[in-house]
Amino acid sequence: MTKLRFNLTISLDGYLAGPDQSLDNPLGVGGMQLHDWAFALAAFRTQHGDAFGAGGETNASTQVIEEQVANVGAVIMGRNMFGGHPGPWRDDPAWTGWWGDDPPYHVPVFVITHHPRPPLVMQGGTTFHFVTDGIAAALAAARAVAGDKDIAVAGGASIAQQYMAAGLLDELNVSLVPVLLGAGERLFDQLGAGALRLEQVRVIAAPGVTHIRYRVTR
Amino acid sequence: MTKLRFNLTISLDGYLAGPDQSLDNPLGVGGMQLHDWAFALAAFRTQHGDAFGAGGETNASTQVIEEQVANVGAVIMGRNMFGGHPGPWRDDPAWTGWWGDDPPYHVPVFVITHHPRPPLVMQGGTTFHFVTDGIAAALAAARAVAGDKDIAVAGGASIAQQYMAAGLLDELNVSLVPVLLGAGERLFDQLGAGALRLEQVRVIAAPGVTHIRYRVTR
Repeated sequence: MTKLRFNLTISLDGYLAGPDQSLDNPLGVGGMQLHDWAFALAAFRTQHGDAFGAGGETNASTQVIEEQVANVGAVIMGRNMFGGHPGPWRDDPAWTGWWGDDPPYHVPVFVITHHPRPPLVMQGGTTFHFVTDGIAAALAAARAVAGDKDIAVAGGASIAQQYMAAGLLDELNVSLVPVLLGAGERLFDQLGAGALRLEQVRVIAAPGVTHIRYRVTR
Repeated sequence: MTKLRFNLTISLDGYLAGPDQSLDNPLGVGGMQLHDWAFALAAFRTQHGDAFGAGGETNASTQVIEEQVANVGAVIMGRNMFGGHPGPWRDDPAWTGWWGDDPPYHVPVFVITHHPRPPLVMQGGTTFHFVTDGIAAALAAARAVAGDKDIAVAGGASIAQQYMAAGLLDELNVSLVPVLLGAGERLFDQLGAGALRLEQVRVIAAPGVTHIRYRVTR
C-alpha cells in the first residue's frame, strides 16, 4: 500500500525553521544546526553530492537517511521550499531550486504554487512539475507517477499542515534535536487539538537526535 | 554530585498542559491524556496510592517512573502546581495540595509562593515548606535537607523555566507523547534561542511514549 510520508527535523521547542527566513538563510536564524546530525553522515553526503564534502560518519541515523529516499516514487513540496522569489516566475535567470543541476530527489517532484510554469527537467532523474490546483491535485499527480512506491512530502510546514489537516498523511517521521530556537516556524501550530491521531511505531536513538516514526491512524 | 532534575511530559506539539487550566481541570483541556502512559503502570499506582486503582502494567516506562523518585531528597514546585486558589492562603478549610493526606513525595517539598504560610506536615514523610524569597532560596533550602541526594523540580512550567533561565538545572527528562493539544502551556516559550545547551544522553522507547534524557551542559 503506497503511503504519503513526511520527514521533519524539529528543535526541542518545536521549530522546523528559525526566525527571519530569507533567500540567503532559508532555514532562518539558527535553523541549519537542526540538520547537523544529517550533514555529518556519509549517507547524506552521498545523496547530496559535493555540497557537504566527501567522507562522513555512519551511525544510527544512517538508516533514517537511507529510508527517507527508499521506495519513494514522487515528492511533493511547497513553493517556498522550492524557493526563488514570491509571485510569478521570473526568467532572469530562471530559479531552478536550491539543489544545483542534480537535485537529491531523482524522481518527479510536484511543486505546489499559484503560478504556472512548464516542467523543469534536471539531471539525475529529477523533474520539477508545477501544480497550480492545490494539494489534492498534486497528490493525484504524484500517485499517477509513483506506481506502488510511496510519496514523500518534502515540506515546508504549510504544505505539510495542509496534508495533515486534510487527513491525507499516512506516516510522520520526526527527528528531534536537543536545540532551542526560541522562535521560528512550527509544524503543528495551525492544526488544533486532536487534528491527527498518531501511533508511535518506532524509535531510533542516534548521536544528537532521536528519530520517532508515527503512523497516522485517522 | 547532587543534581537539579526536571521531568516533564509534553505533547508532540510541545504542551505540558492544555488550555483553560482550572481548579477542576488542573492540566487543562486534554491535558490528562498526556499522562496515560504513566497512569497505566503498576509502578505509578504504587507511588500514588488508591487514586489510580490497583494492579497496572509493567513495561519500558516502569524504569522511568521509578527513576523519577529514586535518589530524590527534596522537591521544588510552584504555587500553581501546589494549587488551591490565587492570593493569600485561606483557612476554610486550608488547601493541602492535590494529593490527599499521603502525597506521593515522601520528602520535603518547597513550594515557591508570594504568600507566607507555616510548614504543612503530611503523612508519609511529605512536608510542604512555603518559600517566599524566590527560586535560589528554594534551591538552597532544598539542598540543605537533600544531603547528597538529587532535587526534583516538580513544575509547573513557570518555575521550571526560571530554573532553566538561571542556569541552575542539570538534567531534563522529557517524555514525548503522540498527542496534539493545539493550545495550552508550553515549557520552552519564555526561554529564547540557545538559553540551554543540551546533550541527549539516553532514549527509552515505551508504549505510547518516548523518554529522552538531556544533560544541561551549561
